[in-house]
Amino acid sequence: MDQLDVLLWLALQEDLGHADVTSVATIPADLTGRARVHGREPFVLSGSHAFQRVFQILDDTTRVQCCFEDGQAVAAHAPVFELEGKVRTLLAGERTALNLLQRLCGVATLTRKMVEALSATPCRLLDTRKTTPLWRALEKQAVRHGGGYNHRFNLADGVLIKDNHIAAAGSIKEAVQRAKTQAPHTLRIEVEVDTLEQLDEALHAAVDVILLDNFSVEMLRRAVTRTRGRALLEASGGVTLESVHAIAQTGVDFISCGALTHSARAIDIGLELLG
Amino acid sequence: MDQLDVLLWLALQEDLGHADVTSVATIPADLTGRARVHGREPFVLSGSHAFQRVFQILDDTTRVQCCFEDGQAVAAHAPVFELEGKVRTLLAGERTALNLLQRLCGVATLTRKMVEALSATPCRLLDTRKTTPLWRALEKQAVRHGGGYNHRFNLADGVLIKDNHIAAAGSIKEAVQRAKTQAPHTLRIEVEVDTLEQLDEALHAAVDVILLDNFSVEMLRRAVTRTRGRALLEASGGVTLESVHAIAQTGVDFISCGALTHSARAIDIGLELLG
Amino acid sequence: MDQLDVLLWLALQEDLGHADVTSVATIPADLTGRARVHGREPFVLSGSHAFQRVFQILDDTTRVQCCFEDGQAVAAHAPVFELEGKVRTLLAGERTALNLLQRLCGVATLTRKMVEALSATPCRLLDTRKTTPLWRALEKQAVRHGGGYNHRFNLADGVLIKDNHIAAAGSIKEAVQRAKTQAPHTLRIEVEVDTLEQLDEALHAAVDVILLDNFSVEMLRRAVTRTRGRALLEASGGVTLESVHAIAQTGVDFISCGALTHSARAIDIGLELLG
Amino acid sequence: MDQLDVLLWLALQEDLGHADVTSVATIPADLTGRARVHGREPFVLSGSHAFQRVFQILDDTTRVQCCFEDGQAVAAHAPVFELEGKVRTLLAGERTALNLLQRLCGVATLTRKMVEALSATPCRLLDTRKTTPLWRALEKQAVRHGGGYNHRFNLADGVLIKDNHIAAAGSIKEAVQRAKTQAPHTLRIEVEVDTLEQLDEALHAAVDVILLDNFSVEMLRRAVTRTRGRALLEASGGVTLESVHAIAQTGVDFISCGALTHSARAIDIGLELLG
Amino acid sequence: MDQLDVLLWLALQEDLGHADVTSVATIPADLTGRARVHGREPFVLSGSHAFQRVFQILDDTTRVQCCFEDGQAVAAHAPVFELEGKVRTLLAGERTALNLLQRLCGVATLTRKMVEALSATPCRLLDTRKTTPLWRALEKQAVRHGGGYNHRFNLADGVLIKDNHIAAAGSIKEAVQRAKTQAPHTLRIEVEVDTLEQLDEALHAAVDVILLDNFSVEMLRRAVTRTRGRALLEASGGVTLESVHAIAQTGVDFISCGALTHSARAIDIGLELLG
Amino acid sequence: MDQLDVLLWLALQEDLGHADVTSVATIPADLTGRARVHGREPFVLSGSHAFQRVFQILDDTTRVQCCFEDGQAVAAHAPVFELEGKVRTLLAGERTALNLLQRLCGVATLTRKMVEALSATPCRLLDTRKTTPLWRALEKQAVRHGGGYNHRFNLADGVLIKDNHIAAAGSIKEAVQRAKTQAPHTLRIEVEVDTLEQLDEALHAAVDVILLDNFSVEMLRRAVTRTRGRALLEASGGVTLESVHAIAQTGVDFISCGALTHSARAIDIGLELLG
Repeated sequence: MDQLDVLLWLALQEDLGHADVTSVATIPADLTGRARVHGREPFVLSGSHAFQRVFQILDDTTRVQCCFEDGQAVAAHAPVFELEGKVRTLLAGERTALNLLQRLCGVATLTRKMVEALSATPCRLLDTRKTTPLWRALEKQAVRHGGGYNHRFNLADGVLIKDNHIAAAGSIKEAVQRAKTQAPHTLRIEVEVDTLEQLDEALHAAVDVILLDNFSVEMLRRAVTRTRGRALLEASGGVTLESVHAIAQTGVDFISCGALTHSARAIDIGLELLG
Repeated sequence: MDQLDVLLWLALQEDLGHADVTSVATIPADLTGRARVHGREPFVLSGSHAFQRVFQILDDTTRVQCCFEDGQAVAAHAPVFELEGKVRTLLAGERTALNLLQRLCGVATLTRKMVEALSATPCRLLDTRKTTPLWRALEKQAVRHGGGYNHRFNLADGVLIKDNHIAAAGSIKEAVQRAKTQAPHTLRIEVEVDTLEQLDEALHAAVDVILLDNFSVEMLRRAVTRTRGRALLEASGGVTLESVHAIAQTGVDFISCGALTHSARAIDIGLELLG
Repeated sequence: MDQLDVLLWLALQEDLGHADVTSVATIPADLTGRARVHGREPFVLSGSHAFQRVFQILDDTTRVQCCFEDGQAVAAHAPVFELEGKVRTLLAGERTALNLLQRLCGVATLTRKMVEALSATPCRLLDTRKTTPLWRALEKQAVRHGGGYNHRFNLADGVLIKDNHIAAAGSIKEAVQRAKTQAPHTLRIEVEVDTLEQLDEALHAAVDVILLDNFSVEMLRRAVTRTRGRALLEASGGVTLESVHAIAQTGVDFISCGALTHSARAIDIGLELLG
Repeated sequence: MDQLDVLLWLALQEDLGHADVTSVATIPADLTGRARVHGREPFVLSGSHAFQRVFQILDDTTRVQCCFEDGQAVAAHAPVFELEGKVRTLLAGERTALNLLQRLCGVATLTRKMVEALSATPCRLLDTRKTTPLWRALEKQAVRHGGGYNHRFNLADGVLIKDNHIAAAGSIKEAVQRAKTQAPHTLRIEVEVDTLEQLDEALHAAVDVILLDNFSVEMLRRAVTRTRGRALLEASGGVTLESVHAIAQTGVDFISCGALTHSARAIDIGLELLG
Repeated sequence: MDQLDVLLWLALQEDLGHADVTSVATIPADLTGRARVHGREPFVLSGSHAFQRVFQILDDTTRVQCCFEDGQAVAAHAPVFELEGKVRTLLAGERTALNLLQRLCGVATLTRKMVEALSATPCRLLDTRKTTPLWRALEKQAVRHGGGYNHRFNLADGVLIKDNHIAAAGSIKEAVQRAKTQAPHTLRIEVEVDTLEQLDEALHAAVDVILLDNFSVEMLRRAVTRTRGRALLEASGGVTLESVHAIAQTGVDFISCGALTHSARAIDIGLELLG
Repeated sequence: MDQLDVLLWLALQEDLGHADVTSVATIPADLTGRARVHGREPFVLSGSHAFQRVFQILDDTTRVQCCFEDGQAVAAHAPVFELEGKVRTLLAGERTALNLLQRLCGVATLTRKMVEALSATPCRLLDTRKTTPLWRALEKQAVRHGGGYNHRFNLADGVLIKDNHIAAAGSIKEAVQRAKTQAPHTLRIEVEVDTLEQLDEALHAAVDVILLDNFSVEMLRRAVTRTRGRALLEASGGVTLESVHAIAQTGVDFISCGALTHSARAIDIGLELLG
């Protein structure tokens, strides 16, 4: 019993309603069978544990074997899972399991592509909090499976001072000062800046990390030069498969990209019962 | 207290963790402010109720006014919501509320485009069960806001006999017979077929609806002719903005499309605190 | 972990409170024993799975063997269950398990009697939504075990247009039209009528099913004649063991009866620890 | 938010499913209306609070006025509740609210009849733990509304030593001794006996209450004589409307009756929307 | 799945957040190890079951062996638990398990000391409802492990009439009368009194138990004399390790002491991973 | 509805059981009254919001006014809360509300004393994760009300590498390297060391914070000298009201103390109904 199981259980209830009326009518309760899952395009696997749990929550005697490890590249049509159990169970879990798997493999696959685009640099690719509500843990894991890194998980495990915090505090200096006093000493202080002037202010305030929002590549280069290693630098905004390499070459430490989780296309994956 | 509120509450907990440490450190607890929400591109609105609830669950004195009705087309940069409340509340709810809204408006907007593509025909556009786990009710509502119609909500409110049910029962005839006997008489019987031969079998079995899966346009036309109104016909597979009109012109009653919910691109929508 | 387990767990908490103080005081924690369950009158079995789960939720090493299958007729005094486990567990689960079992066997037994009364006809006996709150799934299953059929499970899996819907829409025709447009195409449209005039209206509106509420046997006969197979007919109101055969002989397709679930007498069943 | 609301909320979900598809299709979301509730037979009211909560949980602006107080006798056809609110809300709550109300009024009405049958005696009528799982609090309240009294609510708030406890402990004396030592001193010790010999043993063990199970009226009389006020006496078994007066006249202090809650017939009560 | 598991699961979530980031980064997921738990001072063991469950909820393959039984005195540095499992699991459960164990052993140890102080007398030491919210069952069990007895568990399983009830009812006599009529006959009636006059009133009202609140030793003696066994007597207020023996010698039946649960010092217990 | 309310609701259920039988029997349902809360010793207030919520969860018309702000010093016998509402509600919430309040004020009061002891230094007093399970948020808030600061809230919002992590990774250097790579960049890296040699290793590994565990005052002084500001230093172990000032004077940045939350004595606070 963990939090994931609770969410999967609620998701199953959403899809099952009070009963799978079609299967109850047409398939004997005890009929067992086997099924196979494969993609109709190549992809990076993620979500295999959740996929397995869906069926085991329905019936813990269901056998679900995964032929790959999360993070591995899978060829089109290669068998990814082999399942064995009651046919009613296989059909009852199919949609929920695939809905999750297709999305998570989509996130891992897009991340992998971006990571490969910047592979010659030491720059790390980060996710954001722009995730699907209630599935953040799985989506952030998919980013790691793709080769990316995680930004803070939620509002509690990182201090990120943005324009509204600065406005409320009166200045970057004052906002940083408050955060240093109030926030746990286990958290770094990160500030988001829009201009080089703000960058200077943040450096003066001796913050740990600076988020350069919507800086052009040229501006990023100047920011790196100006910072001289006094803070870690994170670039965000306008990050695409096309632009990511140039951004990384500016020398920033991190690039964060919301599209990894909010815009990854679902991978086309299907489950097939075997004769 | 309804089911939506429970999900939104869990989603808020996911994003907040034990506290928004940045805002707690930098923004006075009682500071109030106003904010405005607008898209950076045109879109069809959906999810306005959920958006409002997010903030009211955090603090029921927060005022959230919606300037449009769900289903309306909204121009880029037009103010969609005006909010007023504690600044800490506005920031705490921002990410969760936008993550949902962007996705739901994406679904409604894509649906609207498809619906417009087939508007000269009586054919109805349907969604599927390929929705984001736990957010099906909102996503299916977004399809309606876009002008589409809903297929069955879950496995309990519709009989849909697919290949595996047919295999288990031995034949279409037998599967349909079992469903007629076992399933509540309040449900129609729908059968999915892959060939014209199966279509004939289904017609013989006197089913209510037939799902023609992955039929070419030419085959769809023949299926319509053959059916002569003895059953409702639903087409699925290969449905895109480009193909949807031609499919509709074959005379099928419904077109169902998973992409409406699993592949709609999130709309770019932001929340801005006012000075 | 499924929904039934959650309800049974809550029910056990209701009956146990913080502890079974009597057993804790008088019975050693590790004492094991056997028990037997039997009825003091003949009955049709239903609820055996829930009965077993009650004890297994308390202690999953408890062995509960059922000597019959749900739906079978059980003679008075025949052993129905044999249990083996910790005596404290057997006593802690006894009341909750029996309270459910007695009620469910009561429903199955009453249903069986009614079904036998109309056995020479093709007419089907249906339940209603007049069930015990929170135990609908089990009670509707008991109806099936008795040989009856289920009407819709809830307000979502069937369209049933009643007088209030007709009043709000203005006419049967308009209400049906709205339902055909708005409700999922997977649902049949049923209309409840009080008179033969309304029956005609419903037939004109081309509905799938018509519920004849509180029609006399003579009126039912006329309704069947008038309908000529254009819709399925369901009779309700005044259905008793005495009247049910005559109603079925009018030729209606279904008879629905709330008393199956709201008025079935509990069967007298007891649990006895073996020496 | 209390426990009752949680149960009612779950019950509403059971009856609503994802949506009341008929009302959504046929009744405008904002249409308001009034309704009236009355019985089709005389009864004693109970459950009015739960009835009201059902509608207010759905929409807290719904006005539900109760024309009587719980425990009052209500004539057939007298208006019991007047409701005002959205028509969709009135229809969505109707079935769940009535299912509960009919049952609870049934319990109160049956209790009232039994209480009247023994009214010339000081003997008190008690309920048992043979209640509908999850609705015990409401059913025990209904017994009080009918004029009865409550036995222990659950296994934690009363010590009741039965044959199995006696067997495990070796003797009544030993079982009572253990209970006196282990159970909180705030609980009385009650022992169930089957014979006059056991009665003597229990009296020797100085228990507070003795439950005389399935004693004939003659035996009860002898038990009362033998006890001479040294313990409270409770009679159970074979208690009916016909027998209850004779049992009470034997001089026992309490009569407990499971039928009050497990066999009360539901009262026929309906809700009618007003034109 | 029982109520304790639910609380422990919530407690683990509180301590884990979304992940143990340190262990995830530094310890391989599959690394297994052993650990040992011991106190740095002598103590009476309590809470061993809860301690074990914490680790098994995280991973049910974790082996947790307890070297003592609850209620046994454990020497400083004696191994109390031996654990074997994934190192990540051992570290993830450590803090929650110890936080509970230290507190519960503290309660048992303090209770044991008090019980020993009054061991030459028949007087029983009782706890109160002054427990840590949500952990009452475990703390009351710890009192029993220490050799004490439990007062009522909650407001439902004992009638305890205090000054406010007396004030509302008008007099001790009237309050007792109402309780005798309204409360289940399975509960004793206890009244709290502040003076000998009130004691007399309570005796006149024929209550079962009298709580003598803040009586001096001398007054307690007089109360015992005056009562002459007509009621059980409970002393409370000013109960310390030093005073408890003298209080017991007055002849009261029970001494209740809130400090057992609200002021017991946590025992210093640690978990050590073995090389 | 927030997480605190859920916990308080569960706590109320724990204390109420199915009903406050004494009050139900003796106090009219509608009787209203006023009450006052005060300490019998001076203390620092904390927990006032939770105290108020307890009564409002029971009945949201209850008025609870707090005469001080959290963090203020309150004199013995000064009224802290004034309550007005139904007497049954006041009595039902009393125990749960006081059990929490007494504990939280105890934490704030002990923290205040320690903070005053080191007030002449810039050193900050920190709490730990040694809190009461399920009440961490309130206890950590009480530490802040006392003038202390919070260490990490849970295992997710801070990297703290201890001996077991070092052992698993092979060396401090390797463990730190893994953490820098794997943990979110928003978290500082803290390492716990037992010796000056380990301190040197940690400094070489360029960590952000070093926890000096069980260092003597002399050793702490040497650690500060050796570190020369290259990392923040936290001292723990053997921290008492007596030792805390000397520890602070060594120049460490933080002192963490588990006793603040696991050993604070409950403040004696009572609730009195007004005549």
